[in-house]
Parts: sequence; C-alpha cells; structure tokens
Amino acid sequence: MKIALAQLNFHIGNFESNTQKIIEAAHQAASNGAELTVFAELAVSGYPPRDFLEFDDFIHRCELEVDRIAEACSDIPIILGTPVRNSSPKGKPLYNAAVFIHHRKKQYFRKALLPNYDVFDEYRYFESASSFECLEFNGRTIAVTVCEDLWNLGENPLYVRQPMEELIKQKPDLMINIAASPFDYKRALERESVLRSNVTKYKLPLVYVNHVGAQTELLFDGGSLVMNRDGELVERLPFFEEKLQIVTVDDTVKAKKEFLIPEKIALIHDALVMGIRNYFEKLGFQKAILGLSGGIDSAVTMALAAEALGAENVFALLMPSQFSSDHSVSDALQLAEKLGSPNETIPIAALFDAYEKQLAAVFKGRAFDVTEENIQARTRGVLLMALSNKFGYILLNTSNKSESAVGYGTLYGDMNGGISVLGDLYKTEVFELARYINSNKEIIPLNSIVKPPSAELRPDQKDSDSLPDYEILDKILYAYIEERQGPEAIIAAGFDEKTVARVLRMVNQNEHKRHQTPPILRVSSKAFGMGRRMPIVAKYLI
Amino acid sequence: MKIALAQLNFHIGNFESNTQKIIEAAHQAASNGAELTVFAELAVSGYPPRDFLEFDDFIHRCELEVDRIAEACSDIPIILGTPVRNSSPKGKPLYNAAVFIHHRKKQYFRKALLPNYDVFDEYRYFESASSFECLEFNGRTIAVTVCEDLWNLGENPLYVRQPMEELIKQKPDLMINIAASPFDYKRALERESVLRSNVTKYKLPLVYVNHVGAQTELLFDGGSLVMNRDGELVERLPFFEEKLQIVTVDDTVKAKKEFLIPEKIALIHDALVMGIRNYFEKLGFQKAILGLSGGIDSAVTMALAAEALGAENVFALLMPSQFSSDHSVSDALQLAEKLGSPNETIPIAALFDAYEKQLAAVFKGRAFDVTEENIQARTRGVLLMALSNKFGYILLNTSNKSESAVGYGTLYGDMNGGISVLGDLYKTEVFELARYINSNKEIIPLNSIVKPPSAELRPDQKDSDSLPDYEILDKILYAYIEERQGPEAIIAAGFDEKTVARVLRMVNQNEHKRHQTPPILRVSSKAFGMGRRMPIVAKYLI
Repeated sequence: MKIALAQLNFHIGNFESNTQKIIEAAHQAASNGAELTVFAELAVSGYPPRDFLEFDDFIHRCELEVDRIAEACSDIPIILGTPVRNSSPKGKPLYNAAVFIHHRKKQYFRKALLPNYDVFDEYRYFESASSFECLEFNGRTIAVTVCEDLWNLGENPLYVRQPMEELIKQKPDLMINIAASPFDYKRALERESVLRSNVTKYKLPLVYVNHVGAQTELLFDGGSLVMNRDGELVERLPFFEEKLQIVTVDDTVKAKKEFLIPEKIALIHDALVMGIRNYFEKLGFQKAILGLSGGIDSAVTMALAAEALGAENVFALLMPSQFSSDHSVSDALQLAEKLGSPNETIPIAALFDAYEKQLAAVFKGRAFDVTEENIQARTRGVLLMALSNKFGYILLNTSNKSESAVGYGTLYGDMNGGISVLGDLYKTEVFELARYINSNKEIIPLNSIVKPPSAELRPDQKDSDSLPDYEILDKILYAYIEERQGPEAIIAAGFDEKTVARVLRMVNQNEHKRHQTPPILRVSSKAFGMGRRMPIVAKYLI
Repeated sequence: MKIALAQLNFHIGNFESNTQKIIEAAHQAASNGAELTVFAELAVSGYPPRDFLEFDDFIHRCELEVDRIAEACSDIPIILGTPVRNSSPKGKPLYNAAVFIHHRKKQYFRKALLPNYDVFDEYRYFESASSFECLEFNGRTIAVTVCEDLWNLGENPLYVRQPMEELIKQKPDLMINIAASPFDYKRALERESVLRSNVTKYKLPLVYVNHVGAQTELLFDGGSLVMNRDGELVERLPFFEEKLQIVTVDDTVKAKKEFLIPEKIALIHDALVMGIRNYFEKLGFQKAILGLSGGIDSAVTMALAAEALGAENVFALLMPSQFSSDHSVSDALQLAEKLGSPNETIPIAALFDAYEKQLAAVFKGRAFDVTEENIQARTRGVLLMALSNKFGYILLNTSNKSESAVGYGTLYGDMNGGISVLGDLYKTEVFELARYINSNKEIIPLNSIVKPPSAELRPDQKDSDSLPDYEILDKILYAYIEERQGPEAIIAAGFDEKTVARVLRMVNQNEHKRHQTPPILRVSSKAFGMGRRMPIVAKYLI
C-alpha cells in the first residue's frame, strides 16, 4: 500500500494557506501513485490553536475548510487532523480528531488521551474519546490514532486508559498516527523509542506524520516516519523541513538504510534557525535588530539570525557605555563586518548622564547601585525599540536560560524583544553552540568565546562576582528546572548547601521578571514560558 | 451540629504561616463549641500552587504539614484541602482532596471534576476520582466534595460524570463543599445559584467554605455560606475578609436575615483594594510608585493604592513633557496633595531631547511618528523603574483593559509594572469606578473624569483620534473577549462591519504586547493573562 506522508508547516488560523497546502499535497501525492495521503494533527487550524478553539466562529471555519478540502480532493483519500464537535450534550464541546475523507464522506477517529502537561492544554478544550473503531480502506483494517494515544506505555502510565488495547481487538493490519509532537533536543530519540514500543507490542507496521515548523515558541521538528512490524525504520522524513514522501507500507518492506539522529547541538542549531525564520515569515516581517555587545550571547544570536534571515536583514546596534571595554566594541564590530550586516554605534553615555541629571535631586546622597546598572540596560532597550519602531525591525532578545533563571538581567532593558532566541539554553550550552557555529570557520570572534562573561554595567564587573561559576550554576538549574528536584536531592548529589539554597531562591524570586519576557524558542524539555507555570507571589524556597 | 467555617487568606508555599493559621483557627473554633472545623480547598499549600505540584519536595512538605496539623489538632475534628498521592501505578500522580482528620487519622475525599478552563489547570496535576464515599461523623452521614464536584449541573454539563449522584446513594444528611472559587463581578451570584441548585436537587443542607485573599492576579472573595435544605441562606461570611464563624447546621435552622450581594462596582472596588494590599503584604513590600498623568486611569489606580497601602506609602511621580497640558499637571498634583501622598515632578523634555540627539543621524529625514511617542512613554518607564529600584517601591501599572486589548500602549513604557490594577476594567468601567470612589467626597479631581481621554504624546492628541468611542469599543471588546463571539455575530448585533473587523484585528495583532505585561488583577470572567491563552504568531481575523 502506497501511503504519502505530508510533513508540512502550517500557520495557526491561516486557513487559506493551510487548506491550499493540504489540497496541493494531496493532488501531488495522488498523481505520484499514493493511495492515501496523511497529514498531521489539527492540520486544518495549525497547532496549537489554543483558546481560538473556544470561539465558535473559529471552529466553524475549520469545518468549512474541511468541506473545501473534501470537495477539492473528492477522489483522493486523505487523513488529516481537525477539531470536531461533540454531539452529546455532556462533556466538553469538541474532540481532537483524525478525519478520513473520501468521496466527500468523513469518518472521524477521536483522540482519547489528552496531553495536559508542560506546553500542552488539550483537556482545556477537548472531550476524551470513549469508543474506538478502525478504518476499513482498500481491504486493510487500519488503527488510526492521534498523537498521545500511542504514548501511554510503561509501568507508570499517565493515563488509566489505553486506546490501542481497544483497537487491537479489531485486528488491524497497520497503525497510522497523526501527531503534533514538538521538538526538544532529546525528543526525536524518545519519540522513536515510544513508537517502536507500540510496533513491537502490537506487531504492526506504523505510519507516523508529525508537524514541522515553528509556532511562536514551539518548534516542530517533523521526523515523520514509517516502521515495519519488526520495529525497523523504513523511512524517516528530514528534521526541520517540509517534505511530501510516498512510502510503500506492507509486510515485506525492510529497513533500507540507517537513520541517524544528529547530535544535540546540531539539532538545537537547526531548531533555532527554523524558529527565527518562521517567526518572521509568519508575522510577515523581514528584518531583525539586536544589541551587539561583544559578548557571546548576542554574538550567537546574531549568527543564528543571519543564517535564518540573511545577514543583510539583521541590524546590529552597538551601544557602548563608559564601562564597556575596548574589546567589546571591536569584537562586536568584527562579527557584524564579517557577516556583512548593517550596523550602527550609538554610545549611551550622554543618555545615562541625562538620566543622572534628571534624577540627581531625588537620588541625592544615594550611592551607585543596581539602579544605575538598570538605567544603562533600559537606555539600550529604548534605543533598540526606537529603531525597531522607526524601521519595522523586530527586536531579538539575547538572554540565556541561566541568567533568566536567576534574574540576572534587566526587565524592560536587555530582557526586551519580540522573541527570545537563546532563552532555553544554559550559558554553558551557548558556549557549545558558539563552538558548533565556528566548527567550519570562525564566524563568532574567538575573543567573544574565551573572555570571562561580563554585563559591563559597572567598572571591571564579571558575572562570577554575583553568580556561581556557570559550570556549577547550570547543573543546579538543570536539576531544579528540568528534573524538578528539591533542595535536598540536589545537595545530596554533591552541591554546596548554601549555593543550592541561594540559587533556588533566586529562581523562585524572579518569576515576576520571567512573567514579562518574550516567548522563548523551546529546545529543552522544560523551557520558561507556557510550559512552566509558577505562582508569582509565593513563598516556596524563598 | 455546630460547624465552624474557616474562611482564611493563605499564601502559596508559605507552609509555616498557613499551618499556623489552620491550627489557631481549629483551636479557637473548638474552644467556642464547634464540633467540626472546615477549611478551604488546598488550604495547606495555598491555591493555586500551579507547577509547584510537580515537585516531589513540595508535595512532601504538604504531607509534613498535614501531619503537624493532625498532631496539633488531635482531638479537634477538621476538614481541609490538600494534595494527596495517587497510590495506583496508573494515572496522574496526585489527587486534589479534602481530608477529614481526627485523632491523627485521615480520611480522604478525592475530587472528580477537575476544572481546566480559564484560569484553571487542575487536570495538569490531578487524577480524577472514580469512587466516592461519605464521611460518617457524630452520627451523621456527610457528603464531602471539593469545589467543581458540585458544578456539573444543567442541560449541557461540562463533564460526563456527576459525583453527587454517587454520594446521594449513601443517603447523606448534609453536604460539605470546600472550594477555591475566585472572584469575578458576576461570580457571587452565580455561585449561590449553583449551590442552591444542588441543595434543592438533593434536599440537603450545605456548608460551603471558600478561600479569601489575593494570589497574585487571582482574587478570592470568600462568601462562604450555609444553606438549609430549602435553599435558604442561613449564614454567609463577608466578602474580601477573613472570618471564622460557627454555624448550627440542622434541619430546624431557618434563614435569619437577607444576604444581599453588593453591586458590581462596589465588589470590583473591594476586590482591587484587597488585590493590591495582598500583593504587597505577601511579597513583603510596603511602598508603591506610579506615574500620575492627570488622566483617569492613574488617578483611579492612585486612589485604590492609597486605600490599600495608606496614602503615605504611594509615591506619585509626575513626568510632564512638552505635549502635556497644564491641567494634566494640576489635576495630578491636586490628587496627590488631597491624598497626602509623597510626590515629585521630573520633566522628560531634556531626556527626550537627548534621545532625539543620539538618534538624529540614524533617523535623518524621517518624520515624527509612533517611535517618538514611544520614546516618551519609555523614558517615563525608565524613570519610574529607577525610583522603584533605588527605593524599593513596586511600580503599579495603570493600563486599562480597552487599551490593552487594542494595543494602545507602549511596551516597556506605560505597560510596565509589578501588578496591573485596572487591566481587567474597560475604560467605561474605569469611569464608573472613579465615580464610585468619589461618591462620598471628591477624591479624584472631577476634571480627570470629565476631560476627553488623551495619551498626550503629540500635540492635541485624543484617544478618539485613533480609536472608536469607548462606548462602542468596549461593547465590541466585551462581545469578543468575554463572550467569544465571532465577527458575524457582533456585526449582527448592530455594530459597524469595518469597525468590528478593525477592532478584532487590533486585539489579535497585539497578543505579543499582552504576553509581556504584568499580571492583571482579575475581576471579570475573562481577564487577559493566565485565563486567556492565545497564539502569538497566528493569522485568525488578521
């Protein structure tokens, strides 16, 4: 049986474009001999539509688009994801469903297991399916499921129910799963392992179609695949690229080749480049601006943005102060010039002095403190936003996860931006990424990588004056944020008690800052933002 | 039977303080003759603990506190809310439970209906209970439920199941419901109606205990109550105040008096004052700062803050520009002086000129536009944050819901703040509130109320230059935001087609701004923030 896997990049609520992509892909697949074309979960609306799902008008538009697709593909059998209304008076008003469409007829396969953790909120919108049936098509019995319905395995399953246990009773020949499974740097491996567990448990081949592309902070890596009933990969579509691929799925198909998953930093690199590019494309913007300090964070952000948007579309603004070192300016200029990006230098000393003067009476007798550091950062924020407003650039935020975690940044200053590029990378990972970017040729000035990190907001300042070494800090943060360990467990792992208490307190005390930061391109299993929801006025570990 | 209703203000994760409150209230109630003392849902941790519930250490601390309470109240029967672990290997790791504690023994009553809409995320953490039993105590059979378990009534229930239908089979004499039901200005009435529906359906008296106090943006109004089996109110505890009240609950008790619910604006006023006060108290701050412009939004914010914190603790900063009218300065000064609040004036013209000068080369040949308006707003933001940083003030945000909805505000400028006081009030509601504040004596200068709203960021600017009249705008916004109507329905209600399209487009285009704003004290059924989750890079209605 020839099945086309349509791994496409949809745009939430852009019905015109999503439908056109679906219709074109279906026709192309059919004309190349596909018997069935499979699209991802909630393909019609884009994923995740979030609270748009609460608007009857939005659901109605999804229904109209499904009808348009059914009309345009009347003799082309397809499976795609869409919300569908719950016809019972009881329960939530919608199901998250796969729909099989052929000759304008629709058959729905409703999702039972609704992910509601981390970035997922599906139980907010959807009722859980309670009955299951297979698709009968071209002499085959196909178990059609939606994403999470295959993820409830192991000794400690998150859900009490198990849809495949119901479906297997109908003796299917094949599993098809349509998904919206976002990227993190461990996810491709984990996903393959979960899918293989299903294949080996139920002894069925599997066709799996995932989204690709960025939806604000959520990055979908694709990696759609076909496994034979031995759990061997027959085909895997590329990561971070759209692809329409026809695969013959039957019992005789053997694994043709080895499918390696790129290493962590290569995946992160590609994910971030896609994230930047899609953010701009889908908003209809071409040009970015960022503050280039000569430090590693802005240098890496700049290099990624240049790759995503073209160097000519990335405007670098240098804003040295009296506390900036000479090498900061020269390192920053060197990078902008090497990339060939437009750049300007606007010193902030005169502006800082103007603030000092206006505040002199009110601040009389008070020493220089974090206030004056923040004034510098905020002055830079005003300048960057001024250019952003005047020229239609989007400001890229350059904060990293370590500083965001402990609040080592200025709200309304360097924490500004439309999108945060590195906000889900610990400082030590930013260094790794810099070296990866430089692996073929030196793009990021070596000096930006090797010099000790500094905010340069007071004389001779170093990050290490106020923070533990990043090698230590990042491990404590990972244990607390990604692994959700408590202080006792982290201390038991060998970290200094006072340091642990201090770091965890800093993390919890700075929820209010993170509440007001831009969306962060998500590359880990636990990014700040929609996937990590903390009270602000709380007292735990503070 | 004498039951004490303990309507208390807890602090999330502040175990020391929460436990102490619980123990003290239980002892006080017992010494005044209560046979049973009832506390609210998740009283031990505070509500909502959000992702702290994913930390094993946090759950362990809850368990330790329950043990401490059981020890300290060994001969005092109590019911309180706490998370409890799911001992089955299947399903989510926790239940949201009421626990009856007596003689150090614990009996749990698990919640089945898990609210997962608007501001609620309970299915993110909790498994849904599947079996139900009543509490046998002092010769009574009591149906103990947690909040939402009583809310699944009507012809279109949100959940398929109905816990009271199971519990009623055990022939209870009484219902006790512990809740965490946050305020909105229609909620008290709705809550009473839902509770009465249960009472009349099951013909049982009801004891209902709710939280009181603010948890960042979520405002709990209390209003705990006792109804007899005829659905008459026997007792209702005050709104927005802590209260420990013993009530005799038996078949003979009759309604003693009428319990009126205050009007909308009075409720909103009290909710906001509590919200400001608790935000500061729970963070351990005393003093606020705000920018006082002479306009109505900052005037109302100032009056509320003065009531919540004491006028002497609210610092007003006037920051006139070349575009400020004379009356702006005089109206602002008049308010600060009438309240007796500290205030300073720092003109921004010199700072604005300094930016113009630094940007002159880059902006050469470009006209004055929204960029220069934003520079003024951001300069004010820098000054306010400078005083906030230097003196330990928290900045109060003064944006209203209308301008926040359509993006009529400057990110990193007037959208700054630790907490937004008026962000859930449409402009027309801000006017109502101003008149309510002035109802006994003129606090807010009449001129701030009657003059046409203006941002004063360019010569002779009026809000009505760029926005529809607030009378129209606010109705369209309410239909779209609170009622989630689509454009067709709103136009059908009689609004101009182009205006509707423009307003809805502005709302959707400005999600990115609202993503970076402070938490907003929630007074409506649909506030911006945690209860309204929208994609940023989307194309619906844009």
